[in-house]
Amino acid sequence: MSAAAFSAPALRGPARIEINEVSPRDGLQIEPVVVPTDAKVAFLDALSACGFARIEATSFTSAKAIPALADAEALMHRMHRQPGVRYTALVPNLRGLERALSCRPDEVNLVMSVSETHNRANLRMTRAQSQAQLLAMIAEARAAGVPVNVSLSTVFGCPFEGEVSTDAVMALADSFAEAGALGITLCDTTGMAYPNQVAQMCEQFQQRLPDTGLTIHLHNTRGMGLANAVAAWETGVTRFDAAAGGLGGCPYAPGASGNVSTEELAHMFACMGVQTGVDLPALLDVVAGIPALVERDIGSQLLRAGPRLRTHQPPAWLAEHFAGQD
Amino acid sequence: MSAAAFSAPALRGPARIEINEVSPRDGLQIEPVVVPTDAKVAFLDALSACGFARIEATSFTSAKAIPALADAEALMHRMHRQPGVRYTALVPNLRGLERALSCRPDEVNLVMSVSETHNRANLRMTRAQSQAQLLAMIAEARAAGVPVNVSLSTVFGCPFEGEVSTDAVMALADSFAEAGALGITLCDTTGMAYPNQVAQMCEQFQQRLPDTGLTIHLHNTRGMGLANAVAAWETGVTRFDAAAGGLGGCPYAPGASGNVSTEELAHMFACMGVQTGVDLPALLDVVAGIPALVERDIGSQLLRAGPRLRTHQPPAWLAEHFAGQD
Repeated sequence: MSAAAFSAPALRGPARIEINEVSPRDGLQIEPVVVPTDAKVAFLDALSACGFARIEATSFTSAKAIPALADAEALMHRMHRQPGVRYTALVPNLRGLERALSCRPDEVNLVMSVSETHNRANLRMTRAQSQAQLLAMIAEARAAGVPVNVSLSTVFGCPFEGEVSTDAVMALADSFAEAGALGITLCDTTGMAYPNQVAQMCEQFQQRLPDTGLTIHLHNTRGMGLANAVAAWETGVTRFDAAAGGLGGCPYAPGASGNVSTEELAHMFACMGVQTGVDLPALLDVVAGIPALVERDIGSQLLRAGPRLRTHQPPAWLAEHFAGQD
Repeated sequence: MSAAAFSAPALRGPARIEINEVSPRDGLQIEPVVVPTDAKVAFLDALSACGFARIEATSFTSAKAIPALADAEALMHRMHRQPGVRYTALVPNLRGLERALSCRPDEVNLVMSVSETHNRANLRMTRAQSQAQLLAMIAEARAAGVPVNVSLSTVFGCPFEGEVSTDAVMALADSFAEAGALGITLCDTTGMAYPNQVAQMCEQFQQRLPDTGLTIHLHNTRGMGLANAVAAWETGVTRFDAAAGGLGGCPYAPGASGNVSTEELAHMFACMGVQTGVDLPALLDVVAGIPALVERDIGSQLLRAGPRLRTHQPPAWLAEHFAGQD
């Protein structure tokens, strides 16, 4: 196919994107099995060799709330840091921040929800309490010299409340950017986002906070994960969260499938000629090992089907059937 | 969310699309179970009440090649035609056309592949043989007063040959349009299409054949189904094939999942404010019955998760935990 034959390319976006691999945190936190620390270290090290810009290694949350991530310190100390990869950790509160800072993350990722009910259910704080605590955490992390990103949950809809106000999203983003957060992640926590909503939200964010790094965090709950990623990319977004094998989900949205799958995201952008830095064969090898890690089938479509140009042998009868016709 | 707050909507496309429901043909032809005619009639009648523009009811193919569709005539006679719905039938060869015309379809859909190897494997003819036969069939159908659409398979890639030449696609489209086909469907037979390829192909087609109805037929093999649909829509495409429950696949592409799911396509465009004519709750009722029809789980993500604004009850402990804090 000759690209030069097309007079007006319909889809335009950045020539390069970065992927933040979140499966060690956002994926493993919701699995019923607790993956042993040794296996997690091996998983993280394998991911580190795949060319990701950032990896969210774990969460410094209460071991009681999320037993699967109780080994956060051990993991941060035992994983092998690959030069060029930024290792981040999710931190939901002040106590978690102190634990995280002791492990020298390259970045910390704070979190709260834009919708009141989801924030209460997920963090057991009111939005006002979370916002105040996050502002204090930004100050503390900055004092420690650690860059801060803030992930805003339920930006594109709340599984309890329905539609979420764009003004509420922007007001929270403003307050954290002003306090010194270098990046904001807009999270589609339960897969409620749709393409023109994503495009509009991303455009508005970039016009309003052009100096704040914007990351988009998508789920594939209703099949729109990659469509939403392209919509964000078309507005200039270059940073995407994704989870290998499409791990993840949300305990408050029954039936929800997981994060947008890293291999499908990286494969799509590679097909489109967009640089991702990701070594797809290496990543697919890692994904092939995930069912053993989490002790369940993960149903990665790309793993089953293979990259688009993996061709198959024609049926054996073909040559005989058409013998003499060529 | 206030749409007026956004200064420059990023995604633009037609205000209305039409869906051609292909599950009775493209879905059932590949299922290992042969669905009894009674059950097919009930399925078709239920689909007829969902608001589709077109329904591809069956295929007039060899009963030996596809036993599952051996009841094509009976089905066409027994289904109840809903006013406003166009009932089409796939027709792969001249013998099939004669059978089809006896059943008074509103339209016939001819088919051949752009790639030589896929055409031979799928139709047991060379491309040249298929093209000649299709041109004769167009003449015969026109003489009978029945509108003709031609579906071109492997437009976006061939599972045997890899990349497919855009020039070959356009040359076939030209020949069929010139012979009097009113519509052409560009088929991503095994889910090899990616968004900017789809956009470029659709733009080129519409510039070249502005008076020929363009339909896009997508598979979700590598997760890009809905992203490709949005890409096509952004270039002005208004006609989409889709299969309820994401039924379908390709026998020559092992591991391939099926067609883009009608409920996910209709749900996405409805979220985006695009009219589809589809009654989503009615369609989801039909989809819920598909596992019984095909005797397997179909894994419809939208069926599991529900439409985006289906909200859930907050956890029971929430009210007590925050008592007195509001």
